[in-house]
Amino acid sequence: MKFAFIIASALSVFGGSVSVAASVPVDSLITTSRPDGRFVSSRGVVQQMMKENPPVLAFDRNMKAAEFPRWQSSMKDAMKRLMRHPSVEVPAPRLVKTVARNGYRLEKWESYPLPGAVVPYLVMIPDGVDASHPAPAVLCIPGFGQTKELLAGEVQGNFNLDGQPVAEPGKNSMAYHFVRKGLVAVAVDNVSFGELMDNGRPDYLNTSRMLLEMGWSYLGLTSWQDRVVLDWMKTLPQVDRERIIVSGFSLGTEPLMVLGLLDDSIYAFVYNDFLCTTRERILVMTKPDGNGNRPFPNSIEHLIPEFLTTFDFPDIVAALAPRPVICTEGGLDRDFHKIAKAYELSGAPGNFTYHHYAKYADPTVRMDIKEVPAGVDRTQFFRIVNCDSPSHYFKTEWILPWVDELLKK
Amino acid sequence: MKFAFIIASALSVFGGSVSVAASVPVDSLITTSRPDGRFVSSRGVVQQMMKENPPVLAFDRNMKAAEFPRWQSSMKDAMKRLMRHPSVEVPAPRLVKTVARNGYRLEKWESYPLPGAVVPYLVMIPDGVDASHPAPAVLCIPGFGQTKELLAGEVQGNFNLDGQPVAEPGKNSMAYHFVRKGLVAVAVDNVSFGELMDNGRPDYLNTSRMLLEMGWSYLGLTSWQDRVVLDWMKTLPQVDRERIIVSGFSLGTEPLMVLGLLDDSIYAFVYNDFLCTTRERILVMTKPDGNGNRPFPNSIEHLIPEFLTTFDFPDIVAALAPRPVICTEGGLDRDFHKIAKAYELSGAPGNFTYHHYAKYADPTVRMDIKEVPAGVDRTQFFRIVNCDSPSHYFKTEWILPWVDELLKK
Repeated sequence: MKFAFIIASALSVFGGSVSVAASVPVDSLITTSRPDGRFVSSRGVVQQMMKENPPVLAFDRNMKAAEFPRWQSSMKDAMKRLMRHPSVEVPAPRLVKTVARNGYRLEKWESYPLPGAVVPYLVMIPDGVDASHPAPAVLCIPGFGQTKELLAGEVQGNFNLDGQPVAEPGKNSMAYHFVRKGLVAVAVDNVSFGELMDNGRPDYLNTSRMLLEMGWSYLGLTSWQDRVVLDWMKTLPQVDRERIIVSGFSLGTEPLMVLGLLDDSIYAFVYNDFLCTTRERILVMTKPDGNGNRPFPNSIEHLIPEFLTTFDFPDIVAALAPRPVICTEGGLDRDFHKIAKAYELSGAPGNFTYHHYAKYADPTVRMDIKEVPAGVDRTQFFRIVNCDSPSHYFKTEWILPWVDELLKK
Repeated sequence: MKFAFIIASALSVFGGSVSVAASVPVDSLITTSRPDGRFVSSRGVVQQMMKENPPVLAFDRNMKAAEFPRWQSSMKDAMKRLMRHPSVEVPAPRLVKTVARNGYRLEKWESYPLPGAVVPYLVMIPDGVDASHPAPAVLCIPGFGQTKELLAGEVQGNFNLDGQPVAEPGKNSMAYHFVRKGLVAVAVDNVSFGELMDNGRPDYLNTSRMLLEMGWSYLGLTSWQDRVVLDWMKTLPQVDRERIIVSGFSLGTEPLMVLGLLDDSIYAFVYNDFLCTTRERILVMTKPDGNGNRPFPNSIEHLIPEFLTTFDFPDIVAALAPRPVICTEGGLDRDFHKIAKAYELSGAPGNFTYHHYAKYADPTVRMDIKEVPAGVDRTQFFRIVNCDSPSHYFKTEWILPWVDELLKK
C-alpha cells in the first residue's frame, strides 16, 4: 500500500519506541548537519523559527474551567485585531429580484459592505414563514470554486435567476436543503468567485495579493462581507434572531470561524471540512515532488499574517464553546479531544459533535497521532489526518438530523 | 510597432486631450458599468481601494525644505516598523577560510544573525589595505538568481573556494570590480538562494510564505541579515567606516533601500535596477494574457504588508538625500525629477545621479508620462517606463567612474 511506509513511520516515531527517521529519504526532512545545530538554508532557519513559535493562544488542555472565559475573550480580541474589519457606514441592502420556487420564495439582494462595492446574495424564505411566523435562519458560505447559486439549487452563472432552478440539487446545495427544512437560508459568494469574479474569471490570487499589500487579507474581506449580511439577517422580521446558524463548506469554514469569534449571537455552526491544524500542515509537508520542490502550503487566499502565531483552527473551534458545533469531515482525534475538553470546561459537553469520513469511521483504521511526522507530501498528510478528500461534500446525512435535534431544544 | 498602440494611448490620455480608453480592448481595464460606480467584481473593489489609498508618506514635490527632515524621519520610522528587525544578541562572526587571489585576499566568514541561523559571506581585501591603511568599503547585494560567488568573481556553487576563480569575471561580478578598484568588498547571498538554498534548490516562495505567516517578510529577513554584516564591516580596522557604500543589483536594491533608511552612517548607494513605482505597476498591469488571466504582480518575496500604503521605491530613494545615490537603469523621468527635487531640498542637488538604459538615453524616445495608463501587460509596462530588461546588468561603465569621483571628495 502506498502509505504503508509513512504510516509505519508515524506510528513508530510517535506511538512506539523506534525512530525510523533515518529511513525517510534524506531530503524529505529539513535538517542541518552542523554540530552547532544552526541552519545554513533559509528554509531551515524559517522552519525552525515557526516550530519554536507555537500559537500564543493555543488551547491548553490543562486549562481550568475558571480560566476558560478569559482565554476565550483573548481569542475574540485577537481575531478582531487580525481581521481588520473596517469602520464604515454600511447602507441598507436592497432587494433586486424575487422569484417563486416550489415551497419557498427566492430573493436576490445587494449589500454594500464597502464604499466601492456591491455584493449580491440570495435569500430563501420557506412558504408560511413571515413576521408572525418567524423561522430559524442559516448563513451558507460556499467552498473554493462554489457559488451562491450552487448552494441555492439554482443554475450556476444564472445571476438573474431567470428560468427554472436545478431539478434535483445535489448534496452541496446546502441552502436549498436548509430552506426545504423550514429555515430561512441565505447564500453568499466568496470574494473573487461566482458573481464576484473578475471579468468572468476566478481571481483569488491577484485580489488576495492586493489585499495583503494593503495590510488586509482575503479572509478579512470575505468575512467582512459575510458579517454585513449576517447583521442584516438579524433585522429580518421573519427570522428568529436567537437561532441563526452559520454553515461553512471547505474554504467557507474560515469565515465561519471568524464570525464565530466576532459575533456571540450566532446560535450554532456547521463546519463541513476536515479539521486541519494548518501550522502543522506547513511544517510537515516537506517531501519534495519529482522536481525536488517541496509543496507550497496552499494559495495566498489562506494567508493572514500572524494568524498561525496566534491560534490555529482547532483552537478557534474550541473557543466557540459552549455554542453547538458539528464537524462533519473528520481530522485527528487529538484535535477533537482538545475541542471536546473545551466544551466540557464550558459546561456543555453535549454541544460538540464530530464525525469522521466514512472511510475512517472505524477507529481501528485511524492513527493515534500526537504529532504528525515531517517529511510527508500532501497525499500522505491527508491520509495521516484521516482526510478522504475524494469524498469531500456537504454531509447532509449528518447535518440535517443534527439541525432537527438542535431546533427541537 | 508592437507598442505603438499603447504608447499612443498613454500619450493621448495623459499628455493630450483625447481619451482613447474606449479603444483599449474592453477586458484590459477594470471597470464597472453600474451607474452608482460600485464594483461587483472583488478585483474591482480591491483595485479601487488601492487606487484611493496612495502611500501616506509619498514624497510631495511641493514640500518646503524646512519640512524635509521631518518627512525623512517619518520615512525612517516607517521602514523600521515594517521591517520588524529582531532584538537579538548577535554573536561575532567567525572567519572560516582565507585564500589568496591576484591583487586581493578573499575571506569567507560566517555570521549568526538569528539563534538558528548561520549566514556565510565573502570579504575581499585589496593588497596593501590594513589597519594602518584602511580603505573605503562596499556591501554588495546580488539580484534574484545571483550568488555571492558570482559577485566575487568566484565559481558559482564553489562554496569552499577551492581552486581558481573565474578567469575573466563579467560585469555582474560587482564585488570583484570594486576590490580591483581598491575597496574592501563584501558579498552576501540573498535569503533562499546560493549557499542559503534549501536542499540545493532555490526556495524563495516557501520561505517567503512562512515568514509572512509569522508576520515577517522576505525583505525583513534578508535586510536583517545584510544589516548584521554591515554593522560588522564598521568594526573592521582596515575599513574606513565613514565611507561604506551599499550596492544593490535588482532584487538587491530592496535591502539597499531598507538599510539606507535604517542606517544613517552609510556613505553612498549604487542602485542598479530600473526605478519602479511598484504600486503603479500593480494597478496598471491589468491586461489579460491569452488565457484571460491578468498578470500576477510578482512573487511573494516582494510582498511586505503595508509597504505600498506607506511609501514606494522612488519615495525611499528621495529620502536617502543628501547622501550620494547613482541609479543606473532608468525609469520614468517623472520619478527621477521627484528624487532630484528631494536632493535640492536637502541642499545637495549634485548628489543624485541617474542614467537611462542606452536604448532610452535619447530623451526623444522616452515618453513624458505623468501616470502610466492601466490596461497594459508586463512588456508594455516595461516599454512605457523605459526599462530595457534584456540589457539588465551591473553597469560598471557608469558606476566605476562615479565611485572614483565620489572617493576623491
